[in-house]
Amino acid sequence: MSTPKISVLRLGHRPARDKRISTHVCLTARAFGASEVLVSTKDPGLERTVNDVVLRFGGDFNIRTGVKWRRTIQDFKGTSVHLTMYGEKLDDVLPKLAGVEDLLIVVGAEKVPGDVYKHVNFNVGVGNQPHSEVAALAVFLDRLQGGSELEKEFNGELTVVPTANGKRMLEAGHKESPAKPI
Amino acid sequence: MSTPKISVLRLGHRPARDKRISTHVCLTARAFGASEVLVSTKDPGLERTVNDVVLRFGGDFNIRTGVKWRRTIQDFKGTSVHLTMYGEKLDDVLPKLAGVEDLLIVVGAEKVPGDVYKHVNFNVGVGNQPHSEVAALAVFLDRLQGGSELEKEFNGELTVVPTANGKRMLEAGHKESPAKPI
Repeated sequence: MSTPKISVLRLGHRPARDKRISTHVCLTARAFGASEVLVSTKDPGLERTVNDVVLRFGGDFNIRTGVKWRRTIQDFKGTSVHLTMYGEKLDDVLPKLAGVEDLLIVVGAEKVPGDVYKHVNFNVGVGNQPHSEVAALAVFLDRLQGGSELEKEFNGELTVVPTANGKRMLEAGHKESPAKPI
Repeated sequence: MSTPKISVLRLGHRPARDKRISTHVCLTARAFGASEVLVSTKDPGLERTVNDVVLRFGGDFNIRTGVKWRRTIQDFKGTSVHLTMYGEKLDDVLPKLAGVEDLLIVVGAEKVPGDVYKHVNFNVGVGNQPHSEVAALAVFLDRLQGGSELEKEFNGELTVVPTANGKRMLEAGHKESPAKPI
């Protein structure tokens, strides 16, 4: 199937407590093929962190914080999926998403308001064990896109050159840096 | 291929700063089929959190904190893999792991000492973009095991019953609870 346009909605972000996990959610969304991340709480620091990665590593990726999440889910015109350990099995839901053009993936923090379950089209468990919204998002996006997302070119200022032992980067407009001795 | 025995080694854990991300690493290791997690810094609080999940949700899973990580990597008898955005492509390395019986997966925090790259058998990038060690671990384990890890039975006191809209749990020795109204 063709890849849908993917938005990720992060609920329940508390800037002081959740900064690092929410940063992981946002960067995972970007690295695994989403177009944007929407965060329910205003957080200029999180925006700066994510925009800085986009600036250096490239790709079209937007972050908006302080969005009204209920309205975002209710007004969404495509298909919405909430990742939760209580949800239906991933393998049962994925076939139903074939051909979807616009996908909203909702990931909560520890407590998710009950009406989220009702407002979305699908509640999906990436496994039904307690683990991590970052893990759930990554595996969901990887399975949804059949791994093709890891082949995406980001065309950034910085490009990592995969290497067996070392750190090798290309800088746009410069020659490849030698592998950094480590 | 048969599934190897999988250990996860978490480097650079700082109890105050990394508690939540390291908890996500540990629970992701458990939920995606690893047998144990080893953490480089002593942290009884992290041990309690993880052991509490094991007690309630089942499975054979051990956590040890305060391990000597260099010795753990050097003395490991099986195959060791370090997940890093600088590493070789996942698709290039996975075929080389077919038939491995004991696997040690090393995941760092923000800064990883350079000699980690040299001591392991493979440095692997789950994509070569900056994102999250939780995401990298989850996708690596999912790809390695071809998704079979999500079918594992944990036989715990609590078992989630996958459901389209609600929260449904089985308690060992009791009848299934009704779907909790949400």
